[in-house]
Amino acid sequence: MKKKQFRKALELSRRSKICMLGTNGPEGYPYAKAMLHLKQNGLKEFWFSTNTSSRRVKQIVKDARSCLCFVDQDSIEGLMLLGHTRITQEASIREVLWFEGCEKYYPRGVEDPDYSVIRFKAFRGNYYHGLCNVDFDLK
Amino acid sequence: MKKKQFRKALELSRRSKICMLGTNGPEGYPYAKAMLHLKQNGLKEFWFSTNTSSRRVKQIVKDARSCLCFVDQDSIEGLMLLGHTRITQEASIREVLWFEGCEKYYPRGVEDPDYSVIRFKAFRGNYYHGLCNVDFDLK
Repeated sequence: MKKKQFRKALELSRRSKICMLGTNGPEGYPYAKAMLHLKQNGLKEFWFSTNTSSRRVKQIVKDARSCLCFVDQDSIEGLMLLGHTRITQEASIREVLWFEGCEKYYPRGVEDPDYSVIRFKAFRGNYYHGLCNVDFDLK
Repeated sequence: MKKKQFRKALELSRRSKICMLGTNGPEGYPYAKAMLHLKQNGLKEFWFSTNTSSRRVKQIVKDARSCLCFVDQDSIEGLMLLGHTRITQEASIREVLWFEGCEKYYPRGVEDPDYSVIRFKAFRGNYYHGLCNVDFDLK
């Protein structure tokens, strides 16, 4: 991918408050859910907080294949990343992702057993802006 | 689903300029793409325009199982519908979905062979707003 397009894709992901996580659900149906965009490492890794008891976690444990989508409806710009998700309860990353308001979802605080972290690792992507559309690999 | 929640889910879909269409892609990965929200019939049917030559159309022809997501990031409100998609080039629906600006994507106009319509038919849904989360069937 050209440097300029990579930079624009990265910018799009960075300015997005939410993104959509696609997973493989029961009976072969794709599922998608909006996730609060909290932390990333370039376009390769993303982290999200979630309830351990959620439907999403069950799907990820069963099938790690997933996608992540960012979109700006004003600029008609979009980014889809393909990758794999895994669930972690590692203390350090739970602390990093914690913010005021989280206690609404995890009443027992940062150590709440119902508080888990989804880590998404991308290996391929597609970025489009208007009629420009490029596929790229992430190593 | 309670009437109030159904109404709120319907309102969310109606005010959304875009939504995310999830499909089953190659090698068992879920794919998601933002679609311009053009026409709907309650929560049961939705129509979108797309390029016949697109990756999306190939995926839908191979596997009709799909999902549709609407989200309002300000109100923390979301709707996911599960259903099936099919591709049509019926003249009447192509005309209904046509608007000024479409010629950018379909230069030969409403009869452009690269202009297709995706029809999504839902059978089940999930609506959430804050901590409220309900599943419902659509008959």
